[in-house]
Amino acid sequence: MPGALPIVHGVSLSPFVRKVRAALVEKGVEYELASVMPGSPDESFRSISPLGKVPVYQEGAFSVPDSSVICAYLERRHPSPPLLPADDEGYARVLWLEEYADTKLVEVFGPLYSQRVIQTIVFKQPCDEAVVAGALRDLVPPAFDYLESELSEDGWIVGDAFGLADLTIGAMFVGFRHAGEFVDAERWPRLAAYVARVEARPSLASLIVEEEASLAAL
Amino acid sequence: MPGALPIVHGVSLSPFVRKVRAALVEKGVEYELASVMPGSPDESFRSISPLGKVPVYQEGAFSVPDSSVICAYLERRHPSPPLLPADDEGYARVLWLEEYADTKLVEVFGPLYSQRVIQTIVFKQPCDEAVVAGALRDLVPPAFDYLESELSEDGWIVGDAFGLADLTIGAMFVGFRHAGEFVDAERWPRLAAYVARVEARPSLASLIVEEEASLAAL
Repeated sequence: MPGALPIVHGVSLSPFVRKVRAALVEKGVEYELASVMPGSPDESFRSISPLGKVPVYQEGAFSVPDSSVICAYLERRHPSPPLLPADDEGYARVLWLEEYADTKLVEVFGPLYSQRVIQTIVFKQPCDEAVVAGALRDLVPPAFDYLESELSEDGWIVGDAFGLADLTIGAMFVGFRHAGEFVDAERWPRLAAYVARVEARPSLASLIVEEEASLAAL
Repeated sequence: MPGALPIVHGVSLSPFVRKVRAALVEKGVEYELASVMPGSPDESFRSISPLGKVPVYQEGAFSVPDSSVICAYLERRHPSPPLLPADDEGYARVLWLEEYADTKLVEVFGPLYSQRVIQTIVFKQPCDEAVVAGALRDLVPPAFDYLESELSEDGWIVGDAFGLADLTIGAMFVGFRHAGEFVDAERWPRLAAYVARVEARPSLASLIVEEEASLAAL
């Protein structure tokens, strides 16, 4: 299929799909989104996603799963504009913060997202606010303290340019926003201002608007 | 400290520490191992490992956690010999198999390792063989089927050169070996031969011998 666009397999409300979609926008790469739920038993999906997870990125006969692997591939395939720093230590620091967001922030925001978004908006079931309150009390503060300690008063989290760490942290904070929560600017002033800057980035802002519309339509 | 060696913080029986140590040997980088248990409350450790995990890699004032991030950093800092392919698709495939080993193989081997090694050898407690049998029956076969399907009859798992995917899969299979298990060569002939080749690699073989001696001394 000459001229066929690359395909992102997944669902738009997955933070990992959001991260890859934002990376593609940053890279100026057009793509199609092929809707598939994580865990889908569909055989053609399983053939490209051995663990049944989303996203999977496909270019013709080539495909690769895992948002971090996909972003590393995109950086090689489409080096400009770069999403990773040229210096070795900055590069390592960005990859570490990407990993932190992919694991720790997902764990911290998970209970909020599953209650306020999946349970309430998608399945129209009552929200267990005790679960939400527990996560806000016990899980959120140590993570926000850590991010606050890594941030400056302005700019991006590593070096001078917007990059993969900002994009990944931002993609996860969109889930916090969908859950109806915002960073307390009195307690975490740098983080609150940073999340606002990241969410205003066109690559993420366009996904926020699209996803809010799809949530409102449910 | 001119001439000070880089430091790997962690314990030798962690598969992720083993992976980084093998990568350093492959790269010809001398290092020191600073023994610290994952979850240690030691403040100087926590200052370089926000999640309390091992390994952390340190070069003077610079440090970075997470075995995958460390290996990506080492590839940039010490490009020769390469552990990642030059072509984009091979690069993505190696990173995906690294991720598969780091998550799925660790999940599959975890019950075996915790019973046969941690519980029995380290803590001198009875092994719950029902847990072991359950993992061997339910978890191991799908993972071994997948790896078998990705392998050729000889050589390494991606391309012509030994690389990060082989090293990571090998590091995880050392845990399977410590648990007293070996790949059934009748059921998974390619995988059995591959694991034998990977474990004979000097970088991993030297760690196997060292770790078996330390387990025997417990």
